[in-house]
Amino acid sequence: MSDLIAKAASLDARDQLAKHRELFALDDGVVYLDGNSLGALPRHVPGRMADVITREWGELRIRSWDESGWWTAPERIGDRIAPLVGAAPGQVVVGDSTSVNVFKALVAAVRLVDRAGGEDRDEIVVDATTFPTDGYIAESAARLTGKRLVAAAPGDVAGTVGPRTAVALVNHVDYRTGRLHDLPGITAAVHAAGALAVWDLCHSAGALPVDLDAHGVDLAVGCTYKYLNGGPGAPAFLYVAERHQPGFDSPLPGWNSHADPFAMTPGYAAAEGAARGRVGTPDILSMLALEASLDVWEGVPVEVVRAKSLALTDFFLECVEAYVPEGRVTSVTPEAHGERGSQVSLRCVEAHAVMKELIARGVVGDLRRPDVLRFGFTPLYVSFADAERAARVLADVLSESTG
Amino acid sequence: MSDLIAKAASLDARDQLAKHRELFALDDGVVYLDGNSLGALPRHVPGRMADVITREWGELRIRSWDESGWWTAPERIGDRIAPLVGAAPGQVVVGDSTSVNVFKALVAAVRLVDRAGGEDRDEIVVDATTFPTDGYIAESAARLTGKRLVAAAPGDVAGTVGPRTAVALVNHVDYRTGRLHDLPGITAAVHAAGALAVWDLCHSAGALPVDLDAHGVDLAVGCTYKYLNGGPGAPAFLYVAERHQPGFDSPLPGWNSHADPFAMTPGYAAAEGAARGRVGTPDILSMLALEASLDVWEGVPVEVVRAKSLALTDFFLECVEAYVPEGRVTSVTPEAHGERGSQVSLRCVEAHAVMKELIARGVVGDLRRPDVLRFGFTPLYVSFADAERAARVLADVLSESTG
Repeated sequence: MSDLIAKAASLDARDQLAKHRELFALDDGVVYLDGNSLGALPRHVPGRMADVITREWGELRIRSWDESGWWTAPERIGDRIAPLVGAAPGQVVVGDSTSVNVFKALVAAVRLVDRAGGEDRDEIVVDATTFPTDGYIAESAARLTGKRLVAAAPGDVAGTVGPRTAVALVNHVDYRTGRLHDLPGITAAVHAAGALAVWDLCHSAGALPVDLDAHGVDLAVGCTYKYLNGGPGAPAFLYVAERHQPGFDSPLPGWNSHADPFAMTPGYAAAEGAARGRVGTPDILSMLALEASLDVWEGVPVEVVRAKSLALTDFFLECVEAYVPEGRVTSVTPEAHGERGSQVSLRCVEAHAVMKELIARGVVGDLRRPDVLRFGFTPLYVSFADAERAARVLADVLSESTG
Repeated sequence: MSDLIAKAASLDARDQLAKHRELFALDDGVVYLDGNSLGALPRHVPGRMADVITREWGELRIRSWDESGWWTAPERIGDRIAPLVGAAPGQVVVGDSTSVNVFKALVAAVRLVDRAGGEDRDEIVVDATTFPTDGYIAESAARLTGKRLVAAAPGDVAGTVGPRTAVALVNHVDYRTGRLHDLPGITAAVHAAGALAVWDLCHSAGALPVDLDAHGVDLAVGCTYKYLNGGPGAPAFLYVAERHQPGFDSPLPGWNSHADPFAMTPGYAAAEGAARGRVGTPDILSMLALEASLDVWEGVPVEVVRAKSLALTDFFLECVEAYVPEGRVTSVTPEAHGERGSQVSLRCVEAHAVMKELIARGVVGDLRRPDVLRFGFTPLYVSFADAERAARVLADVLSESTG
């Protein structure tokens, strides 16, 4: 055991992101491995939000829509997220929930395909292991656009898409297992079939390079309250590749996406650019908390984050292997780096009781029913010492229980 | 002039809501008549939000979904809004923007009608003077459900609905003129035609009694950042009458409206009750600011608010009549109390320049292009002295300009 403690200390000493932990409110001795569900609070956010609430809302009031830049926040914050997902400016807009953005993206994608002469393409392919909301929303999008839903395991998407496919919706990283799917390869296969690719980046944005532009992704959605630390229920983002923007025909054409919102004309005319993905009045408080949170990314290349993420999950798996009694847990997260996101999922009997005990002992992960312990590794604030301690406490809990 | 100043003082002295002004951050000497666009900040909200951000997010982190009641906030806050719009508990849920909720309500209403054997009802009637987003979204709902949109002036809705009408969407108060539409009468006419009535309460919730249950309204949506003072872009609310909940079939069936969200099953099964109107993860910061803001309603009957609102707008019109040079402004807000919301809209040449000057002199209203000056009267914090001063400054500005 002491070898791994020493190794953790050595890895932490060489970690170029180690100082970033100080930017977060993490002084309570807890090992927080649930940043893939809700990112930790950046220390400067309370002060920024006090100003937003007291001065921008309380003193400037309505003037803040212009003077505090509230009106343009969705595009401005989108442009701050853009480099983290490999997008040039002007293609990302923030607002609404991930579910609502999946809906916009899928219906708009179907319409893009229809308009390009693909009306006979009657299938929406969705990955069968998707986070459930994507599947529910895809079913609704199919129903409303007269398409049918086809489920395929992500590994089979490339073989499933064909002349009947309009659009494929795939998760970049599986929320349950932490498996990283082959975004470049699947996107290329979807394009080869003449269809459009929509990616859900909830578990990859801020955790690893995505390179949306480089891989020719058509549309993407993502969450900002996990690895982007934007706060509970922070608004999601929508990426619409520039080439698709003129044809992006939203099923939710609210007044915020109008070319001249304050003309308040009865006829709808869509704005140019990513603003076309907006709908109604944005939730300013949540949105500006997200904007402030993004400051922690200043000067942090995603590649460095990715390298630390893999080192952390490698080391955690090494510690689990060393500490945990044989046969008590099975990793369902791939060994291969090219197939791993930024979490480790361990299958375990009595997972619910085990996670409860872990949390009681200061190691916070979460449970995916019925039997998966999830541990998320946010490279900006998780240390190698955290990884070692988590594995050690897990081993203690399992050694004490009857299994 | 001094007579009206004295009258204002007398009205304020008798105003049983006068002490409520102290609950709001309004110490800057500004006459704030834009609460129909963005309500003023309740003084206790910054403290509450500091706790939400620092303790609930920063310290409890993921545990707050349970321990701080985040997960159940949409229904809990809905139940606090319910009495303000005349709804029994369990019928109002908070989340998403008004636009998104209009979409849910309209598509769900069409499906309710279809399911009840009304598939041949192929029209969605929408009020022709609606706030634009309602019309844009109604057009989208019509397109996706295979219906067609029919525009009718609100006064003509009762005469327009018929055997081809599936649903009618009407604004309770016109955002531009402040005209209050006949909710009981129009709802009854829509029902008599065999259709469903969806009401947009953005400019009435918190300003006057709505009595949704009493009048048999089917579905309704509303805004929380105007007269409910919930903060910039605070989430909207959706009312689904209890009798329609079992058949409420959302076009946005996100995981938050699933009967067992954490089972994360691939098949969608809708939750019971108002939760069926939820979609994705709620924007907690905005939502809890709204929840805190609602404290100012403690012990305030909507009827008292309505009485003061009418007294305020009556008095403002009296002052305008007395002070403003003949012919310089024309009220487009109805004289009759039964047809007036909680704002006064004055048509005026060079309205843009006039409003700019008013704001510079500390009287904040807003402009609806091209020529309408809007003055919103929030009874919880606007005084009769405010109304008198606003009219006096308006008269000054108009007297000094060439018109």
